[in-house]
Amino acid sequence: MAAKFMSMRNLKFTLYDVAGIENLKNRPKGSYDEKSVNMILSAASDFAEKELHPFFEEMDRNSPEFENQTVKVHPGVKRILDVLGDDGWIAAPFPEKWGGENMPSSILHALSFIFCSANYSASVYSGLTAGAAKLIESFGSEELKEKFIPPMLDGKWQGTMALTEPEAGTSLGDLSTAAYPLENGEYKIKGEKIFISAGDHDCAENIVHLMLGRIDGAPEGVKGISLFAVPKFRINKDSDFEKNDVNVTQVFHKMGYRGAPITGLSMGEKDDCRGWLIGEENKGLKYMFQMMNGARLEVGTGAAAIAGAAFHAALDYSKGRKQGRKISAGKSKEQIPIIEHDDVKRMLLFQRVVSEGGLSLILQCGKYEDMIEDASDEDKENYHLLLELLTPVAKSYSAEMGIQSTSLSIQCFGGYGYCEDFPVEQHFRDMRIHAIHEGTTGIQGMDLLGRKVVMKNGKALSLLSQEVSKTSEAARKSGLEKYADELENQLKTIVDTTKILGETAMTEGAEAFLENSTLYLEMFGHFAVAWQWLKMGVTAQEKLNSGSVKKNDKMFYEGKLSVLKYCFSHELPKTGFLAQVITNRENAVLNTSTENFTL
Amino acid sequence: MAAKFMSMRNLKFTLYDVAGIENLKNRPKGSYDEKSVNMILSAASDFAEKELHPFFEEMDRNSPEFENQTVKVHPGVKRILDVLGDDGWIAAPFPEKWGGENMPSSILHALSFIFCSANYSASVYSGLTAGAAKLIESFGSEELKEKFIPPMLDGKWQGTMALTEPEAGTSLGDLSTAAYPLENGEYKIKGEKIFISAGDHDCAENIVHLMLGRIDGAPEGVKGISLFAVPKFRINKDSDFEKNDVNVTQVFHKMGYRGAPITGLSMGEKDDCRGWLIGEENKGLKYMFQMMNGARLEVGTGAAAIAGAAFHAALDYSKGRKQGRKISAGKSKEQIPIIEHDDVKRMLLFQRVVSEGGLSLILQCGKYEDMIEDASDEDKENYHLLLELLTPVAKSYSAEMGIQSTSLSIQCFGGYGYCEDFPVEQHFRDMRIHAIHEGTTGIQGMDLLGRKVVMKNGKALSLLSQEVSKTSEAARKSGLEKYADELENQLKTIVDTTKILGETAMTEGAEAFLENSTLYLEMFGHFAVAWQWLKMGVTAQEKLNSGSVKKNDKMFYEGKLSVLKYCFSHELPKTGFLAQVITNRENAVLNTSTENFTL
Repeated sequence: MAAKFMSMRNLKFTLYDVAGIENLKNRPKGSYDEKSVNMILSAASDFAEKELHPFFEEMDRNSPEFENQTVKVHPGVKRILDVLGDDGWIAAPFPEKWGGENMPSSILHALSFIFCSANYSASVYSGLTAGAAKLIESFGSEELKEKFIPPMLDGKWQGTMALTEPEAGTSLGDLSTAAYPLENGEYKIKGEKIFISAGDHDCAENIVHLMLGRIDGAPEGVKGISLFAVPKFRINKDSDFEKNDVNVTQVFHKMGYRGAPITGLSMGEKDDCRGWLIGEENKGLKYMFQMMNGARLEVGTGAAAIAGAAFHAALDYSKGRKQGRKISAGKSKEQIPIIEHDDVKRMLLFQRVVSEGGLSLILQCGKYEDMIEDASDEDKENYHLLLELLTPVAKSYSAEMGIQSTSLSIQCFGGYGYCEDFPVEQHFRDMRIHAIHEGTTGIQGMDLLGRKVVMKNGKALSLLSQEVSKTSEAARKSGLEKYADELENQLKTIVDTTKILGETAMTEGAEAFLENSTLYLEMFGHFAVAWQWLKMGVTAQEKLNSGSVKKNDKMFYEGKLSVLKYCFSHELPKTGFLAQVITNRENAVLNTSTENFTL
Repeated sequence: MAAKFMSMRNLKFTLYDVAGIENLKNRPKGSYDEKSVNMILSAASDFAEKELHPFFEEMDRNSPEFENQTVKVHPGVKRILDVLGDDGWIAAPFPEKWGGENMPSSILHALSFIFCSANYSASVYSGLTAGAAKLIESFGSEELKEKFIPPMLDGKWQGTMALTEPEAGTSLGDLSTAAYPLENGEYKIKGEKIFISAGDHDCAENIVHLMLGRIDGAPEGVKGISLFAVPKFRINKDSDFEKNDVNVTQVFHKMGYRGAPITGLSMGEKDDCRGWLIGEENKGLKYMFQMMNGARLEVGTGAAAIAGAAFHAALDYSKGRKQGRKISAGKSKEQIPIIEHDDVKRMLLFQRVVSEGGLSLILQCGKYEDMIEDASDEDKENYHLLLELLTPVAKSYSAEMGIQSTSLSIQCFGGYGYCEDFPVEQHFRDMRIHAIHEGTTGIQGMDLLGRKVVMKNGKALSLLSQEVSKTSEAARKSGLEKYADELENQLKTIVDTTKILGETAMTEGAEAFLENSTLYLEMFGHFAVAWQWLKMGVTAQEKLNSGSVKKNDKMFYEGKLSVLKYCFSHELPKTGFLAQVITNRENAVLNTSTENFTL
């Protein structure tokens, strides 16, 4: 049997009991109930155990290489994509027309969590393809849809999102990939891209790049960016593949996430690269951000999943490894499992706060995504605002705390954790990309404070306050009023801090306002995850209060309450601490100049 | 020219102006003044640039392999050890009798900082040899000294410290390596060791293991541990090498620190392994801890050095890489160096707090080591207590904060930081071992709170308070009274927290007392490093107040004050936050049971 890399009981608890899926029962696009979701999760878990997890180490040790103009990846990728295509996993979120099931987002995140837990690198190929196909489906012409979507959903063609350029990473407005209109409506593409995940590999017949570029004569900056489908091979009239002058310039060798290739690309070296415009001219960034927001939640899911997999490895080891004795045990001769040492317990509790809390926050976002689809217009906007507000938080909390969490997974193993004999060092390496890809933590911080919190006069934060109040109310009813009070206190901290920063924006300008936006994001993350822990705690407490739980479930629920307690005594207070730092108005960062780094 | 991996100006500032070396001028064992130390540092820097730094990446990419019963390491190691031996670097701390210069500890730490900054893995070989030779010199018989010390100090023979066993890592009392006395005074050794740094390699003629074992019939636990010299080859009457039945069982493949081998060893497979007792029977652990305490400071030095090297890479990149614009800049077309973005500045400031603060704390410890040697008996004890108190702090602060610091070095680079093209991902990997080797952070926390703080009725903490008060006083004189007040406040926090924990120990027992000892250590670390930053700030301010500084020095000193401000507004407050967590008496960890981890 494969090593345990996730807890299905916890996933179901979070999805069914905490986020709740009753809203999916009467869904116009197709209903889902617990029974049907059970089957899906079980099939996904089976696939992850049999097809993904066995290659977890192998794909890391045999990372992609660029040889003979081909990016060679682990051959297992071919079979994984075939099965994901054949069994309908890639098509799942799509309408029936494309062979899909209109699967709701919350379920999709749960599936993604399973796959990422088993083998993060292996999970990204199909996720990228689905995202790219979704973009074509949303904004492409019928012709483009017919041409690209079916082979992508079959797992035969790879999709990518091609944004970053050597001179324009975070600063997308500076990208310079050029598109020259041709008479037949196509575009000639010229430019360079870097850091393109799955940008080329030998387990796909074709690669479809969803690429940002600038049509000749377009406005400068972000307002002149258009979106193109730029395939590796174009299909000619005879349905034959024809090279499209998309050239791999390099494969980046990375610290982790080594089972998936990240490539540099050069388009139009022979002046023969064609692209097809998606949607309207100059609206590319808006389109791309549909995919990007989804991708950010995917990154959060991946980070929570990796943290969870590392935690399960650490838990397993801590239960089995005997070392030392209780301080109070005196000269008793038997060594005890290290999980009985408080410092190990503390590290395991932290890992649970991060991985289970991070997952819960992702599923909360998934819930909002689903509600947006099915709710009335006014509610739709509210859910949309909540989703927008929490997306940078859900992405960055797991990505940043995941570094600390996987670091503590290593620490549970002692020296063994640093060695390749155990999986945790790889989890630590795989984790580190998440604070970078799909927008660095710094960018997420500016997005949260500079955009999401202030939009519609702060309505999103008000809506979140209402959501939190619902949780507090339920907590008070089930006997967890102490935690309700603490969470409400910290909610007030968040609101007050935001107000103070708002005043700073008025009196001192945007730069002072955003000086510590990354710390604001971190503060928000600790709060949001504590909120999720209270939601989990309330659910667990209600189950226990009901009296009719099996012994094993009882231990699970009591465990949730233990972590809740730890979260509120050790983690939630970080919100208050960071609020102090953010509002101390010392401007220690702002007032530091480049000259101050004279060494 | 090699990339800049450290700042000599900062090292000299910290050593000469902050720690101060005037005490080394009239030293009975040989005097050192600024001029002579300048020459030593310059030679070390030269060696590091020419012989160590060029192999930084190569040694990582070609990590040790166990082939044909030999551990093959990078061939550059041979030359490095030859030069370190020939030029007297390994012998430096030893008396003239052994070709040494009685070099003071503070200078030795500075040298080690230079070497570790250039290439951490390459630096450990000779450090281990010097430590092992020192142990033989301190406690070994004349015969042992004559036999082992010269080839070790020449760099021909490698030294190791062989403590850890498969079933006894942290719990040394459980080690089972056995020693059977022979009639000739030697011992027959039987046992297994793991995780032995430089435990075998093909660039040394012989390996001398300083090995802990248990003499047949010795008391159980830590009281029955003796120390032996167990060489790979023993020397027979004809001065020929004879195999000593010390067998390599494996080379561990590690996430980082890959330029140095860590091996498993099996002694006495053919019943023919001999060891020589060092000092008296059953006093091995006490002897070993002489080396261990030094080794812990070495680990702290290595961590601060790696953090510093990663910082310098990040600084260099941040100054050169152009991306984005100032928020306030509007539509200005020129992209700016990313160091001008506040979030990048914030990350760089944090890295300086850790690496320069960590170095300063190490040199503070080095200063105490030197004072112990030369002071009167009463002062000697005081310095010894201060050193004992600060050793776990200096080790763990840099090791743990170094993970976050190198993580932020990566973040400054964005996606490039995750790739092997730049050194920061390796620094991040190399860093991670430091919270593990020579005693995990958890062990350091128990050492600090459970032993160091309580010894002699808390005298060490009183002495530290006096030291801090001296700094505050100087701060008030130079116009930095605001920082003096804040530091004194947090000193009070530390003292109060310690008192509360003392009461907990009385009323609730040892386990409750130590429940959060790791967090206590972290709290102590933020405080101790802020103290060092105030020391640095005072020195910088005094220089500036004197009025006669060159422009470039002025920028350096002003930079120190910028980091001081950042440290006190963003980092020092963590002391107060952690004190709250430690004293909240929720017992969230203590009350968590193994059953609570039912998932």
